Amino acid sequence: MAQWPSYAAYVISFITIGIIWINHHAAFHRLRAVDHSILIWNLLLLLGVGILPFTTSLMATYLKEGSGEGLAAAIYGASFLLMGAIFVMTNRQILLRRPRLLREPIDPEAAHDILRFAALGQLPYALAVVLAFVSPYITLGICAACAVYYALPVASRGPSDDHSDASIA
Amino acid sequence: MAQWPSYAAYVISFITIGIIWINHHAAFHRLRAVDHSILIWNLLLLLGVGILPFTTSLMATYLKEGSGEGLAAAIYGASFLLMGAIFVMTNRQILLRRPRLLREPIDPEAAHDILRFAALGQLPYALAVVLAFVSPYITLGICAACAVYYALPVASRGPSDDHSDASIA
Amino acid sequence: MAQWPSYAAYVISFITIGIIWINHHAAFHRLRAVDHSILIWNLLLLLGVGILPFTTSLMATYLKEGSGEGLAAAIYGASFLLMGAIFVMTNRQILLRRPRLLREPIDPEAAHDILRFAALGQLPYALAVVLAFVSPYITLGICAACAVYYALPVASRGPSDDHSDASIA
Amino acid sequence: MAQWPSYAAYVISFITIGIIWINHHAAFHRLRAVDHSILIWNLLLLLGVGILPFTTSLMATYLKEGSGEGLAAAIYGASFLLMGAIFVMTNRQILLRRPRLLREPIDPEAAHDILRFAALGQLPYALAVVLAFVSPYITLGICAACAVYYALPVASRGPSDDHSDASIA
Repeated sequence: MAQWPSYAAYVISFITIGIIWINHHAAFHRLRAVDHSILIWNLLLLLGVGILPFTTSLMATYLKEGSGEGLAAAIYGASFLLMGAIFVMTNRQILLRRPRLLREPIDPEAAHDILRFAALGQLPYALAVVLAFVSPYITLGICAACAVYYALPVASRGPSDDHSDASIA
Repeated sequence: MAQWPSYAAYVISFITIGIIWINHHAAFHRLRAVDHSILIWNLLLLLGVGILPFTTSLMATYLKEGSGEGLAAAIYGASFLLMGAIFVMTNRQILLRRPRLLREPIDPEAAHDILRFAALGQLPYALAVVLAFVSPYITLGICAACAVYYALPVASRGPSDDHSDASIA
Repeated sequence: MAQWPSYAAYVISFITIGIIWINHHAAFHRLRAVDHSILIWNLLLLLGVGILPFTTSLMATYLKEGSGEGLAAAIYGASFLLMGAIFVMTNRQILLRRPRLLREPIDPEAAHDILRFAALGQLPYALAVVLAFVSPYITLGICAACAVYYALPVASRGPSDDHSDASIA
Repeated sequence: MAQWPSYAAYVISFITIGIIWINHHAAFHRLRAVDHSILIWNLLLLLGVGILPFTTSLMATYLKEGSGEGLAAAIYGASFLLMGAIFVMTNRQILLRRPRLLREPIDPEAAHDILRFAALGQLPYALAVVLAFVSPYITLGICAACAVYYALPVASRGPSDDHSDASIA
């Protein structure tokens, strides 16, 4: 029972990967075709997701051991930040640099709004890295709060709202 | 050979996940589109499924050791119950709260019947949790009986019968 | 290098699962829809495939240890036989008992031919189980020969030939 | 931190598998249907990909231990070479021996160009195997350079260029 923070680290990672997957689905749903550059960004995103189990396991191990958990939490938060950054860059490649591949043309202003909104969403993770050295539980708390926020219906009311009711195909 | 209950725990979990997967397929087949709330419920369902290997392994380990198997069996049964509860809630979100996303309109009365039938299906698992402290073999037996029941043709004759002959797409 | 039979066991299992997967694809390609019974047989087939990694690991371990490899090889062969038997039963359910779900009607005579051919294909595995107690290398050799045979172009010239040039969808 | 070459081995393998996957997608996108021979080559390709985690783990272990890393690096490079060779053979089967299965007819000259280009791409891996005995870091460097090269936009400007803007289906 005393090991609940370790389990929390796993659950938070799982939900965050799930939300990335939902957003990824929405981002790629905008495309009618892909080119080499988008596939490579997609690959890097997958690599970022693939790193998470290792940093989560690291976090869980050091939380149990009760020493060195500051650095482990910083690495845990940094892996979330890295994944988020790659996702923003993938979206940037799609919306600003390959608009010709979109199903429906997007207003450049709207594209910038979506990207600004997505970039802002990485700020809490940056904070989670820095504050890891104060306490790993702050990192865990911030990451948990982000996961819960994005899971709530309110999260879909941002500029990325247009994937509500995505058709199944 | 004396370890057969451990293996039984794995086989029961496998078949139960398989049946959830079949029912999940039927439930999502009713939808022509998904929204944020359904995707999040789907994610929680996946989280529930992801917990099962751990509780199954716990059950198998304590059945071999022969001590503490009461609590392990209760946790095993509880993970089935949790998964079932999330599945009922996902179905509720689809049938009662997002009927506009259905391919074909459903009669509210029929929707309530399906949900009541699904909710009733969780009763044996609740019993399996409580009786785990009498004997873990009762838990195993109840979970096995549920798996066999749902695998038999008779199981598809409930109100959720409309997924017989689901087209492949 | 002396451990090559262990590695061979893994490669043979991999190729056999792959061939089952190809044949499975062909069998389900015949269907325009599925019902509860076919989905349950499909689930049992998946369970059979899921057992193979364990029996393969058992085979590899005992071949390295050099004792008890007779029984391990019999279990290895038996898991191939079980998987094959479930596959034949799945096909039987599709071809004889649910012909109304087929895309194109099949001549009952042709259906029986396909099933007889598939059932005959299990004979070598039955032999591999029995001869495991003479030498595990006979089991390995028979399973390898079956894998190579089914991978060769000649294998597709049996009554199940109609999946040549299966369209990609 | 001193273990970075081990981690590099994992990242290089991941990116290389990802690029193979992108190229595989492009190669199979050319097909309107598959036959037995193409499915078997596809299976062998999957087997090649399945070997990579083991050779990568071997490479990582011996780089950490600091002895026998020459042979481990040669095996690591050889697994890349094997995977590449199977991929070239799969493409050869598709382009030269089963042109009737292509969506759009391909000029035999263009087919030979694609195959020659793909075969040339295996030369660095052959070099990586040979030079592994000089230093495993040369092997790692060559494999890394190949991964980066294929990830860069320039890589898609070869004769296989026609998968730019592959439609999503």
